[in-house]
Amino acid sequence: MKKEIDVLVIGGSAAGIVAATTGKAFYPDKQVLIVRKEAEAVVPCGIPYIYGTLKGVEQNVIPVSHIEQAGVELMIDEVVSIDEVAKTARTKGGAEICYDKLVIATGSVPKVPGWLKGTELDNVFTIPKDREYLAALKSRLETCSKVVIIGAGFIGVEIADELGKKAKDITLVEVLPHVLQMAFDEELSVRAEEILTAGGVKLRLEEKVEEIEGNGQVAGVCLSGGELLEADAVILATGYLPNTTLARDAGIKLNEFGAIRVDEYMRTENKDVFAVGDCAEKFSFFTRIAKGLMLASTACSEARIAGMNLYKLSRLRTFGGTMSIFSTAIGGTTFAAAGVTEHVAIERGFDVVTGSAEGIDKHPGTLPGVSKQYVKLIVNRESGLVLGGSVIGGASAGELINVIGVIIENMMTIHSVLTLQFGTHPLLTGSPTGYPLIKAAEAVAKKLRY
Amino acid sequence: MKKEIDVLVIGGSAAGIVAATTGKAFYPDKQVLIVRKEAEAVVPCGIPYIYGTLKGVEQNVIPVSHIEQAGVELMIDEVVSIDEVAKTARTKGGAEICYDKLVIATGSVPKVPGWLKGTELDNVFTIPKDREYLAALKSRLETCSKVVIIGAGFIGVEIADELGKKAKDITLVEVLPHVLQMAFDEELSVRAEEILTAGGVKLRLEEKVEEIEGNGQVAGVCLSGGELLEADAVILATGYLPNTTLARDAGIKLNEFGAIRVDEYMRTENKDVFAVGDCAEKFSFFTRIAKGLMLASTACSEARIAGMNLYKLSRLRTFGGTMSIFSTAIGGTTFAAAGVTEHVAIERGFDVVTGSAEGIDKHPGTLPGVSKQYVKLIVNRESGLVLGGSVIGGASAGELINVIGVIIENMMTIHSVLTLQFGTHPLLTGSPTGYPLIKAAEAVAKKLRY
Repeated sequence: MKKEIDVLVIGGSAAGIVAATTGKAFYPDKQVLIVRKEAEAVVPCGIPYIYGTLKGVEQNVIPVSHIEQAGVELMIDEVVSIDEVAKTARTKGGAEICYDKLVIATGSVPKVPGWLKGTELDNVFTIPKDREYLAALKSRLETCSKVVIIGAGFIGVEIADELGKKAKDITLVEVLPHVLQMAFDEELSVRAEEILTAGGVKLRLEEKVEEIEGNGQVAGVCLSGGELLEADAVILATGYLPNTTLARDAGIKLNEFGAIRVDEYMRTENKDVFAVGDCAEKFSFFTRIAKGLMLASTACSEARIAGMNLYKLSRLRTFGGTMSIFSTAIGGTTFAAAGVTEHVAIERGFDVVTGSAEGIDKHPGTLPGVSKQYVKLIVNRESGLVLGGSVIGGASAGELINVIGVIIENMMTIHSVLTLQFGTHPLLTGSPTGYPLIKAAEAVAKKLRY
Repeated sequence: MKKEIDVLVIGGSAAGIVAATTGKAFYPDKQVLIVRKEAEAVVPCGIPYIYGTLKGVEQNVIPVSHIEQAGVELMIDEVVSIDEVAKTARTKGGAEICYDKLVIATGSVPKVPGWLKGTELDNVFTIPKDREYLAALKSRLETCSKVVIIGAGFIGVEIADELGKKAKDITLVEVLPHVLQMAFDEELSVRAEEILTAGGVKLRLEEKVEEIEGNGQVAGVCLSGGELLEADAVILATGYLPNTTLARDAGIKLNEFGAIRVDEYMRTENKDVFAVGDCAEKFSFFTRIAKGLMLASTACSEARIAGMNLYKLSRLRTFGGTMSIFSTAIGGTTFAAAGVTEHVAIERGFDVVTGSAEGIDKHPGTLPGVSKQYVKLIVNRESGLVLGGSVIGGASAGELINVIGVIIENMMTIHSVLTLQFGTHPLLTGSPTGYPLIKAAEAVAKKLRY
């Protein structure tokens, strides 16, 4: 079967869908086709919630209707090769697709440490974005009572928190001194650890895993000190790798992380080939350093930029580097960060001043459902520019971190933050007199002796 | 008694406290004194919640501890005259206070329509920022079952919503075609009306009140069509006037609304006298038109600017006009707006393009506690600048409107909004693929045929 199309998008998770629908919206005359393996794609960041809050995988799929409504065609098949010169792609199902523009959105796959013994044992799992695998994992976990999770990044922490709700015996092992250490400064990580511990999750920090033990089926995880943690199941939450075998085989250039090299329009070296999402190169908004970070929100931002630039470049619509805006909820408390953390800023060579404030997220504090709200700002001493911020709070902190994100992206100084106007309301936000973001800015200003 | 002080702040509600504490923070060597009548000041925007969600007025006071901790002195007394030349103020208690800098933060008082008959009847109330009055009102309302509220601005709507929870017979009368019409476009107001009606509040829109009837005690409200609405109690929520008798008597210049004229540093014509909050002049961020708007959040922003500029002007810390960022919750649904509404933008002479999108505020939509989230953006056609935005949603919309506020205040164009990075999380925000703010920006871009 031979098929001609204007825009071919390979991969149909978040980034692929957004690249395709944005492309179609900006170039309505073009025919856009997504080819993906899965009839139904899971919501990537929703995966941990399959194991607690949601009933199952079927509650965590991206609706196909969005794709159809946008006028984008969807083919369930797997692209097995790309010919950049002939501008064709071949599928497992035997189709040959001729394209004008190609968008690669093949995502990422779980990284299994090569040195780690025992990962092939039964009941040792990873967390791939694969509906069937995740559904099978859910039913297998029902029969397990002792679960060891290796890796306390977002996926590890969120799954531990969710499985904890199911009254299982959960141990979370992390080689670094703190959970979520790549995303947060120590004071936030410590607070997250307190909540996890209070929820019954056993934390083993600064512990290296020696090997996974068992005979056919997993029996436990052996730490480098010799201790054995018994386990009916082990989950490897040890990160992800760009899924770029297809691109590499086609001769498309990769960076040192194995991610596809892209320019600010999300184009590869070949001007007709774009790459977006976890498979595409990431670099820092502040230093242009390449990084391994993978976020659905960043992926969608890249995908929008690719879609808009498919047939006509716009200087106004370029990708200026990943801002790293994170949020999560642990035991009902929100943890969020934008830009750089204090420790990363210092590591990168910035002279920074930080300020923090703790308040409440409704006012007066006598209202039902009030949560504490902690805000920290990280500011470049010389320029006064806000480089980062973090928040601990109730559910509204998930959008408050986006306020800080917009502040950073606009390269606002701490002066201008001090005079920013905010809307406040008793039931919805901190008080106008004690709005923690402003109070944190004041704390910075005080240190700068303005 | 004679007292010397560096900075005298008259009035100790939100704006007075913030002016005083900011002044003290930026000029720690200066002695700062607040003189206010009330031993305890009520949280201004919390007042409606005294009548439903909170147990009483005592749960809605601004803690005095914040003032003391900041090193600001508090005197409970009433300033009765100011001598600008001698730089002194006299109090009812007989004190004479010599100051170097003066900040007037005397707030506002309820506006009672002069033409309206019957406002002096028993059980006809206003909503002043007065602890004792509000407490007395609460106990009086306990015995009333039929309440008519005149005026469907924020105070009227919020009190109606709260009293509705107490299973009273509530009628809300408004002369304009819609509730909250000064703050929102019609589609938002209509949604608010549906929620109020579903909650049992009877709406009488486009109805002019002829007079309030009764004999000693109120008996009802007579509409101009002749109909009589029976009432045990009537609440006048017909706006507020700047409380500027003291300033006027001292010869300080007022504007056409009776508000104290101020410059961008919040100074009056006298360089040593500042005015902030409801008693100070307000003007539009976009057109410099003087306006009558009163918001605690704006008041605090002005107060911060006054405090920082007391002894040393800073070009970086000026007030550029009121952004009008509102939020409220009606029957548990958040309504919020920032900048101009579509109808006001058109009225002012802007050629605008609007775009809206509806999504959800968690993802996937199968998660418990998901609310719909509607976002509308108002964009200047020629410049592409975002002039306003509005949101209907769950509790997180209270901070989402601040995201839009920061976008407007930074004079961002719709192009740059399209490429903004946002943090998303299943439990906290809309999805990265369908984030309604981005979708609304796309809808605008589509209309502009970018």
